[in-house]
Amino acid sequence: MAGNSFGAQFRFTTWGESHGPAIGCVVDGVPPRVPLAEADLQQWLDRRKPGQSRFTTQRQEPDRVRILSGVFEGLTTGTPISLEILNEDQRSKDYGEIKDKFRPGHADYTYFAKYGIRDYRGGGRSSARETASRVAAGGVARAVLTALIGPGIQIRGALVQMGPHKIDRARWDWAQIEQNPFWCPDPVAAAEWESYLDGVRKAGSSIGAVIEVVASGVPAGLGNPIYQKLDADLASAMMSINAVKAVEIGDGFAAAALSGEENADEMRMGNDGVRFLSNHAGGILGGISSGQDVVVRFAVKPTSSILQPRRTVDSAGNETEIVTKGRHDPCVGIRAVPVGEAMMALVLADHVLQHRAQCG
Amino acid sequence: MAGNSFGAQFRFTTWGESHGPAIGCVVDGVPPRVPLAEADLQQWLDRRKPGQSRFTTQRQEPDRVRILSGVFEGLTTGTPISLEILNEDQRSKDYGEIKDKFRPGHADYTYFAKYGIRDYRGGGRSSARETASRVAAGGVARAVLTALIGPGIQIRGALVQMGPHKIDRARWDWAQIEQNPFWCPDPVAAAEWESYLDGVRKAGSSIGAVIEVVASGVPAGLGNPIYQKLDADLASAMMSINAVKAVEIGDGFAAAALSGEENADEMRMGNDGVRFLSNHAGGILGGISSGQDVVVRFAVKPTSSILQPRRTVDSAGNETEIVTKGRHDPCVGIRAVPVGEAMMALVLADHVLQHRAQCG
Amino acid sequence: MAGNSFGAQFRFTTWGESHGPAIGCVVDGVPPRVPLAEADLQQWLDRRKPGQSRFTTQRQEPDRVRILSGVFEGLTTGTPISLEILNEDQRSKDYGEIKDKFRPGHADYTYFAKYGIRDYRGGGRSSARETASRVAAGGVARAVLTALIGPGIQIRGALVQMGPHKIDRARWDWAQIEQNPFWCPDPVAAAEWESYLDGVRKAGSSIGAVIEVVASGVPAGLGNPIYQKLDADLASAMMSINAVKAVEIGDGFAAAALSGEENADEMRMGNDGVRFLSNHAGGILGGISSGQDVVVRFAVKPTSSILQPRRTVDSAGNETEIVTKGRHDPCVGIRAVPVGEAMMALVLADHVLQHRAQCG
Amino acid sequence: MAGNSFGAQFRFTTWGESHGPAIGCVVDGVPPRVPLAEADLQQWLDRRKPGQSRFTTQRQEPDRVRILSGVFEGLTTGTPISLEILNEDQRSKDYGEIKDKFRPGHADYTYFAKYGIRDYRGGGRSSARETASRVAAGGVARAVLTALIGPGIQIRGALVQMGPHKIDRARWDWAQIEQNPFWCPDPVAAAEWESYLDGVRKAGSSIGAVIEVVASGVPAGLGNPIYQKLDADLASAMMSINAVKAVEIGDGFAAAALSGEENADEMRMGNDGVRFLSNHAGGILGGISSGQDVVVRFAVKPTSSILQPRRTVDSAGNETEIVTKGRHDPCVGIRAVPVGEAMMALVLADHVLQHRAQCG
Repeated sequence: MAGNSFGAQFRFTTWGESHGPAIGCVVDGVPPRVPLAEADLQQWLDRRKPGQSRFTTQRQEPDRVRILSGVFEGLTTGTPISLEILNEDQRSKDYGEIKDKFRPGHADYTYFAKYGIRDYRGGGRSSARETASRVAAGGVARAVLTALIGPGIQIRGALVQMGPHKIDRARWDWAQIEQNPFWCPDPVAAAEWESYLDGVRKAGSSIGAVIEVVASGVPAGLGNPIYQKLDADLASAMMSINAVKAVEIGDGFAAAALSGEENADEMRMGNDGVRFLSNHAGGILGGISSGQDVVVRFAVKPTSSILQPRRTVDSAGNETEIVTKGRHDPCVGIRAVPVGEAMMALVLADHVLQHRAQCG
Repeated sequence: MAGNSFGAQFRFTTWGESHGPAIGCVVDGVPPRVPLAEADLQQWLDRRKPGQSRFTTQRQEPDRVRILSGVFEGLTTGTPISLEILNEDQRSKDYGEIKDKFRPGHADYTYFAKYGIRDYRGGGRSSARETASRVAAGGVARAVLTALIGPGIQIRGALVQMGPHKIDRARWDWAQIEQNPFWCPDPVAAAEWESYLDGVRKAGSSIGAVIEVVASGVPAGLGNPIYQKLDADLASAMMSINAVKAVEIGDGFAAAALSGEENADEMRMGNDGVRFLSNHAGGILGGISSGQDVVVRFAVKPTSSILQPRRTVDSAGNETEIVTKGRHDPCVGIRAVPVGEAMMALVLADHVLQHRAQCG
Repeated sequence: MAGNSFGAQFRFTTWGESHGPAIGCVVDGVPPRVPLAEADLQQWLDRRKPGQSRFTTQRQEPDRVRILSGVFEGLTTGTPISLEILNEDQRSKDYGEIKDKFRPGHADYTYFAKYGIRDYRGGGRSSARETASRVAAGGVARAVLTALIGPGIQIRGALVQMGPHKIDRARWDWAQIEQNPFWCPDPVAAAEWESYLDGVRKAGSSIGAVIEVVASGVPAGLGNPIYQKLDADLASAMMSINAVKAVEIGDGFAAAALSGEENADEMRMGNDGVRFLSNHAGGILGGISSGQDVVVRFAVKPTSSILQPRRTVDSAGNETEIVTKGRHDPCVGIRAVPVGEAMMALVLADHVLQHRAQCG
Repeated sequence: MAGNSFGAQFRFTTWGESHGPAIGCVVDGVPPRVPLAEADLQQWLDRRKPGQSRFTTQRQEPDRVRILSGVFEGLTTGTPISLEILNEDQRSKDYGEIKDKFRPGHADYTYFAKYGIRDYRGGGRSSARETASRVAAGGVARAVLTALIGPGIQIRGALVQMGPHKIDRARWDWAQIEQNPFWCPDPVAAAEWESYLDGVRKAGSSIGAVIEVVASGVPAGLGNPIYQKLDADLASAMMSINAVKAVEIGDGFAAAALSGEENADEMRMGNDGVRFLSNHAGGILGGISSGQDVVVRFAVKPTSSILQPRRTVDSAGNETEIVTKGRHDPCVGIRAVPVGEAMMALVLADHVLQHRAQCG
């Protein structure tokens, strides 16, 4: 229990550092007899893969995932699924600068404060490279959700704000997210962001973003009543993604300014049960899903590695400056989209199994 | 593991329904030889107690907490601390309306969807009454923090937004929070809110709020690296409070609009170690505390119980309307302030113990 | 996680000391809509109750259990069930002797080594009084097993050895266990034990025992494959009972002397599936139930409180002697029988829920 | 939580099947700055390695362990340690017989009952091959114990009974265990066992064994008070080893026949604190270590794979017979010795960390 595992029933543990030989994870609690192949996982990793546009890190990794256990003749066996991804592009590199200096905004200083030692190569364990394991595990979660709930369940993420620029929600079109390098559902915003982010990139600067993840087809009744609520687990899941500083469900912070009348999602009867007239709650009431879309948004801070010099200190206690060179993303929020989707899938799969335990 | 416990090493489990004979909790993992008396806990419960102004529910409960185990001759023994609070003001009441109808915004429908049964009396387990147990457990956590870290650790909460009305942070004065019924640190805002909330109350309406909780004196190095990060646990903790829909750390959602240069908290050397020149990060980097103030904000939606009729359905599937009469708070966010403080204390105590386990 | 909770999905946490105001437990994860009343629990507590014959402690306690939460209109709601039993017979007593001296065989010395403090009154938390909470929780587990598996599941315990005297298994008759004060299934042995134990008691001595617990009607497929196996959890459960020093499943230690041919439980087809021709395995293969009777035995050491003086030391480091006066059982193994049954029920209920989580 | 992880604070998760590409484990919670190299782990794996005498399986595997993460420049970093061992000797083999037939004494039937699917190749996940991961993880645990407690802690195992033949404890000599292929501390017994086991092997039969594991230098105060006691965790740990059917601590089952006077381990003052005059308790009182040697014994049933035909059924429900051919151990208990040592190390490391969490 040292903060490398997630989930109560559908539980995965990730391991590996940015510049070690490999990264990976072990997924435990997977129901037996779920169809699963490496290609099912690889499709999600390919979406997250770096180097797909000029806006994401140029680190070149095939990020090919191998299933080492837990699958037999194309089906899960109920035993742990070990997934492994080799680290293939660890350029030989001079670590002199970051070896001793703490990069502002990074975890360098806090890791050192905690452990008294740190693997400084590429951020070591704190590198966003760890999220590849999440995406792979998320692929297992998606397979489980499809097997247990059916194909109706759908999890999609989108970038809804880049820096100060928000999308126009009236133009939301899910089909657009594969059409631009930002997972942006608003084609007008996407076009504007392209030149905007080019400017940020050329300036050696960076910018934050807001991601929205929506799960449709989630049955009512998933979640817990007090702690480990569905929304609390989603908050924990999204906040655990590198650089995330905020999470909201449904109307989120905007709900503070609503009146009780405005906020109430009224209910009518529909063809297959209760139908809500609005979704301020983001599909969760009292920590339990209502059957509406589960809607989560999270904010990603700007990439901490920038070309502007920043004041800092080194591990010997000297004041100094640092410039973080190398391959980096001007907006790490972009690559957080598939990770947010994966975390949604992982939380939902976990709650489906938790629900079966107690409620059959 | 059915969502009624919180914490890995400092772990508490709450139990009890709004209208049962009592509520309470068991706190386990408490270090031995920590001074603890009922009065240490009662002081925090008294802050949360209902009926202290016309703006909070008129339910009259002494909310007196008893320690039933785990303390011997004024010191904790390391064995579980059982805390109990009697439910004394369960007015005999006609539950006819809410017995069968699902109140919009409440957990009535989702509890029924999950369990197929619900204790409809006062919301049963989903009532905010459960938070009294959190505040009591939070008192134990504060005693542990003081014993282990010293008196320098301080946890304080404030209401920073009521409905659409935010405080002016330039007027922030912690001394003010005990001077108004809102835990508001801005005396001007507090005065304005008073008449504003009177209007809301008289209209039978309700309004949301935003709470900020700040922990000072937190040592650097607390937290976990990937999951169960300090910020992820805080997000889970705050999101688990009734009616909370959003959580942010440090700059939170505002960080999305910052550039990397703006967001970087630069470091210099101070008299006792590293000194940061700003605190956009809210005291947490890579899931681990930096030694700066830990800053969390969360949004509470408007009270769902309002005097305006809302459309809903009943458990038999009939369309109907409901008005929730009775004693209720026009702004439940007010009473969430001591609860937020308690959750901060509980998360920090847990991470202090987790840190000792791995890092000595 | 400080050793006061048991179970992964059906999880209970006990609290309370021998001479505090009360003891109790919180049972979480209980499926909803299971019929449950206080009388369902009381029947098991009455079997464990002290003072029922001259062979068990004369402490007089009604041991009346109250359900404080989690049950509504006679059915479980899926929320935590809080159970409480008052401590009513804490005789005012001079603790002078045991306050400072470590009683050999008791946990006095080790508790002090661990916590640096101890509640010396009646053994504090280490008193076997804690097992009343287990028996109460076990009653909830039995109700869950009946609701989920059906009335065919049956859990019974028996004393099969007292001191050096074993029963004759050829005379095993379950109906006998309620006919003597020892839960002995062999009436001849029971008669002999009566005079034997009178002698032990009058000599101010004590003696150990072996208990066997059998669960019939357990479906095949319950358990885990590697750790937290059904037998590993049973071993942990039984070993956690006060004074237990050994646990075995099926043939247990005797299996070491068997050949592979002798030990193999051969299989044939019966009317309702697989039928085994023997049960050396005690109903568990590879950590998972086979559908046969689950058979566990455990050894209880002799009561450590005896009237013979024993050499010891005190907390100041002085060498001294101690005689433990007062009301005590010459053979604590007798009262461990209902506790062993309860632990079997608790482990099985937990594994039924765990199985549902993963395997539906 | 599906039974593939062990430990609360020092926690490891194993994965892999007998005939998959590899097996391995992830060890989490390891304190930082502990010296660790692959050779530190390999030395223990070499002790467990098959094919070292004619009495253990002729499967030829180098069992070379790789550290894939969590170690940097020769020191642990506090992040998860991923260990991997390739499966190199999976002979191409006709699985026709065991593919459909359930081997008596094996987990074939119960795995199928649980999961509805099974990887029949070499027993799949239920193969004792998984114990290589335990031994590797145990090596990490030993390094942690040495770093945290000092070199005084020593964990050693011995075979004390083979079939019906016990050692003479008067001849116990730890130096002998490396001098014979049985880890037998009694050279006379070892010589006798050699011809005895040859007879068993040539008859195509098998036999059980009893293993004793002793930890010296364990400080007083480790363990938990009620559940997850040190002895309960040891019971769970040892019972989780393949083919184990019984566990005892100290005098174990023999304690049932003792009187209270005989069983009491009296205390005197020694040069460095309390000194016990005997160790019937096996170093554990009330679930907490006393500072004496921790002594555990466990029984291993005879190897289930034998050359004698046994009656069984197949997955289609037909009655049939089976003979398990191939490379197998006549006494699997021999190879359980290093595994028992590893489990002792793992339990102790976990309790050292748990103790630090609560008691500093």
